[in-house]
Amino acid sequence: MDTTKLSERLAEAGQSHILQFWDQLSPEEQSDMGLDLENMNFIEINTFFQNAMKISGQSSQEKVDSRMEPVPREVLGSVTRDSGCLKEWEKEGLRCISENKVAVLLLAGGQGTRLGVPYPKGMYDVGLPSHKTLFQIQAERIRRLEQLAEKLHAKKCCIPWYIMTSGRTMDMTKEFFLQHKYFGLKKENVLFFQQGMLPAMDFNGKIILEGKGKLAMAPDGNGGLYRALGTQKIVDDMKKRGISYIHVYCVDNILVKVADPAFIGFCSLKGADCGAKVVEKTNPTEAVGVVCKVDGRYQVVEYSEITLATAEKRSSDGRLMFNSGNIANHFFTLEFLSEIVRTYEPQLQHHVAQKKIPFVNTQGQLIKPDKPNGIKMEKFVFDIFQFAKKFVVYEVLREDEFSPLKNADSQDGKDNPTTARHALMSLHHRWILNAGGNFVDENGTHIPAIPSLKDGTDLPIKCEICPLVSYGGEGLEHLVNGRAFQPSLMIDESGVHELVKNGL
Amino acid sequence: MDTTKLSERLAEAGQSHILQFWDQLSPEEQSDMGLDLENMNFIEINTFFQNAMKISGQSSQEKVDSRMEPVPREVLGSVTRDSGCLKEWEKEGLRCISENKVAVLLLAGGQGTRLGVPYPKGMYDVGLPSHKTLFQIQAERIRRLEQLAEKLHAKKCCIPWYIMTSGRTMDMTKEFFLQHKYFGLKKENVLFFQQGMLPAMDFNGKIILEGKGKLAMAPDGNGGLYRALGTQKIVDDMKKRGISYIHVYCVDNILVKVADPAFIGFCSLKGADCGAKVVEKTNPTEAVGVVCKVDGRYQVVEYSEITLATAEKRSSDGRLMFNSGNIANHFFTLEFLSEIVRTYEPQLQHHVAQKKIPFVNTQGQLIKPDKPNGIKMEKFVFDIFQFAKKFVVYEVLREDEFSPLKNADSQDGKDNPTTARHALMSLHHRWILNAGGNFVDENGTHIPAIPSLKDGTDLPIKCEICPLVSYGGEGLEHLVNGRAFQPSLMIDESGVHELVKNGL
Repeated sequence: MDTTKLSERLAEAGQSHILQFWDQLSPEEQSDMGLDLENMNFIEINTFFQNAMKISGQSSQEKVDSRMEPVPREVLGSVTRDSGCLKEWEKEGLRCISENKVAVLLLAGGQGTRLGVPYPKGMYDVGLPSHKTLFQIQAERIRRLEQLAEKLHAKKCCIPWYIMTSGRTMDMTKEFFLQHKYFGLKKENVLFFQQGMLPAMDFNGKIILEGKGKLAMAPDGNGGLYRALGTQKIVDDMKKRGISYIHVYCVDNILVKVADPAFIGFCSLKGADCGAKVVEKTNPTEAVGVVCKVDGRYQVVEYSEITLATAEKRSSDGRLMFNSGNIANHFFTLEFLSEIVRTYEPQLQHHVAQKKIPFVNTQGQLIKPDKPNGIKMEKFVFDIFQFAKKFVVYEVLREDEFSPLKNADSQDGKDNPTTARHALMSLHHRWILNAGGNFVDENGTHIPAIPSLKDGTDLPIKCEICPLVSYGGEGLEHLVNGRAFQPSLMIDESGVHELVKNGL
Repeated sequence: MDTTKLSERLAEAGQSHILQFWDQLSPEEQSDMGLDLENMNFIEINTFFQNAMKISGQSSQEKVDSRMEPVPREVLGSVTRDSGCLKEWEKEGLRCISENKVAVLLLAGGQGTRLGVPYPKGMYDVGLPSHKTLFQIQAERIRRLEQLAEKLHAKKCCIPWYIMTSGRTMDMTKEFFLQHKYFGLKKENVLFFQQGMLPAMDFNGKIILEGKGKLAMAPDGNGGLYRALGTQKIVDDMKKRGISYIHVYCVDNILVKVADPAFIGFCSLKGADCGAKVVEKTNPTEAVGVVCKVDGRYQVVEYSEITLATAEKRSSDGRLMFNSGNIANHFFTLEFLSEIVRTYEPQLQHHVAQKKIPFVNTQGQLIKPDKPNGIKMEKFVFDIFQFAKKFVVYEVLREDEFSPLKNADSQDGKDNPTTARHALMSLHHRWILNAGGNFVDENGTHIPAIPSLKDGTDLPIKCEICPLVSYGGEGLEHLVNGRAFQPSLMIDESGVHELVKNGL
């Protein structure tokens, strides 16, 4: 294999060390590595690094804190404070859906590293009675929503589902959907595309080798979306389909209201080009980014960037001043997204994430560092808020809409399979109570609406409602009103099932 | 031993079964049992049972729900919404303390059953760097507060500490305080008294035997306080000392602001005879009782008594309508308490708690039932709210003031040693940041104010401030301002200590 050209390009970019073990590689390894390197633009990568390090160095706490302003009330829609408007918003959203104007876009490029699984998070089964995966739950919500819109407007409609994977998750994701026949969706309406990867760099801007013939590569952040939307012609596909509004969300939230008609309706009626769904941050030290204005433009300020004094600031109503907790759940018009892809994406700088990155040293030994030795470069999906002409914020209830799956189960853990499972079952329990159903224990005694703390654990009532039966709690009265159920309860398209153990 | 009289009294009360194993008991056991029974008023106990079962049968959900009204704004003081008043309230509270008008009363009669320890909860070490017990932390807060009031008003003062134990915790508690020299408090200002015990009854009103010669006994609830205040002459002692205001709290809250001057000052300035400190309930299904009005009188409605629809009701400001979460933290005037003891306590009925109570069957075998087989009878400390002439509610921040220790550590557990320890260290961390201090990691890198979620666990910065140095965050500037610390950090009377591992 002739490496002359490659060597030249690497030398020019100051990255010649990448080939230091070339002669020790087998012909096959050489060929693989050559292929990997051929398509990489090292000059561009160096520029990314320099710019990322520059803005990373600039960001000093004091500056952001003093420039932050909270979200003004007039751009905020709240399911609690504006509950009177919810029906109207939902109606508008369903209208948009019925006219085939709404698409959903799933960010699923991350790997389940913290969750501790070797496959994409969407394939995870959190242990619900049905053992459905996150992908299946989301697919079924889309199908139900299509049916609701169709019924209301008496015409067929479709919500195309764009799924962004990364180099490491694409094949498994596609295979999984194929195996499961797209969970009842039409194959042509489930579209996969791939975000970019970037090499990890040491603090001097040298690309890190994780093997003698292998660069340390990582996805370019969920904001890699915008580059991918262009390179993979996704915007074009959306245009062809006549899409106007896109709901973007993250795979790990088991409660996600995919294409939430109330959210879409709110944004549409407000004439927004960009919107963020948020939950109220109530504890100053909660590790969540907040949507706010900085220098008059909207952005998400990460918790690590602000001082405690700022995080603790309160409005006269007693709420935290910066309380719009970002949950990676966004609305965009296609027009706005097109403009981003066309004009603004290249202007966005990468953020620097310091990491412990395993590397081979000059002796070729693999070293696992115990402190950060380099950076990954990432863009964030919310980096484009600053370009919005009309930005809105939509506040929802955490217990109804947000329970992310990030970690493996562990003592005192958060955001893990147990918390996700409990969050969904608790929501479905509330749906049943509000539809007039009730639960009794094995002795026939009424179980109170609010579960007591037994043995130190909130043990929720085991119940699960198939999304094909209810998207957001609707349509359950005729199934449960006036009835008393003994858990586990499962409601699906075939009816209501009490799954009592031991065949009793 | 002559049991004729006892037999007659038992026969009269329909409780003769208690003596069914009498002839099988050793003389010693007979003597013990005889002593236990001699002082019991079985007719009174039967009346308690009948009344308790009656009100338990009456309470139907629908009724309470429709009769509930939220706490009106004008009786509410809030540390967030009325932050401008805090200084004035605190000043007033410290004035009362300096004039020896304030006492604290600790409810410590419970056993650490759920925590899984065979000794009183107050003796528990949650694993802080100092390994202080709950009793010690509370004692030191009292001492610090006395010093603050003394300094401000240039006169010696004292906050007497009344500690209510039960038959099962009295000896160990007293011994523990003696061993530890009352944690620096004067012995004569730490006063122990004992709440009553009541037998557990089966559903037919028969007293349950937990052994052939032993009744199943349990403390009569934290509302047993009011009877004990009379029988043990505590009210008289308070009068003798010139006490006007009493802060009553529960032993298990590691963050408790004992004799909180702002709370006492608020209640005093409002002219209240009775007040409840609360935290905002933000999730409808949280298992916490709420302070509200029922038929125009204040009470705590337990979460199991209300429907989900009521729990989910919201005010126009988006907050839950019933959001005053009770944390067993109350203010009373001595006048009010005297009136309660004198007039109202006997009118209070016991509540029924259905329990699985181990019992000996007619064959004398010990049986552990797997479903509730009887009741314990309890009064609650908040049962007297209804008698208040001027009731007020004082809302504080959960993260600053409430973290109860109820359970042993377990997966996904709540209210356990780990959550208690983390809550205290997180509070102290915030005090240090707000006093101008900072933390750095082992590489000297600044640690952001808001800890990131590492490996699925909020690992707080390890730091602890001795209550003798700071009661509520005050007095730390000269120790920490402008300094950067590497955890673990300990601040006590002897100074600031960085407890770095391995002697580095």
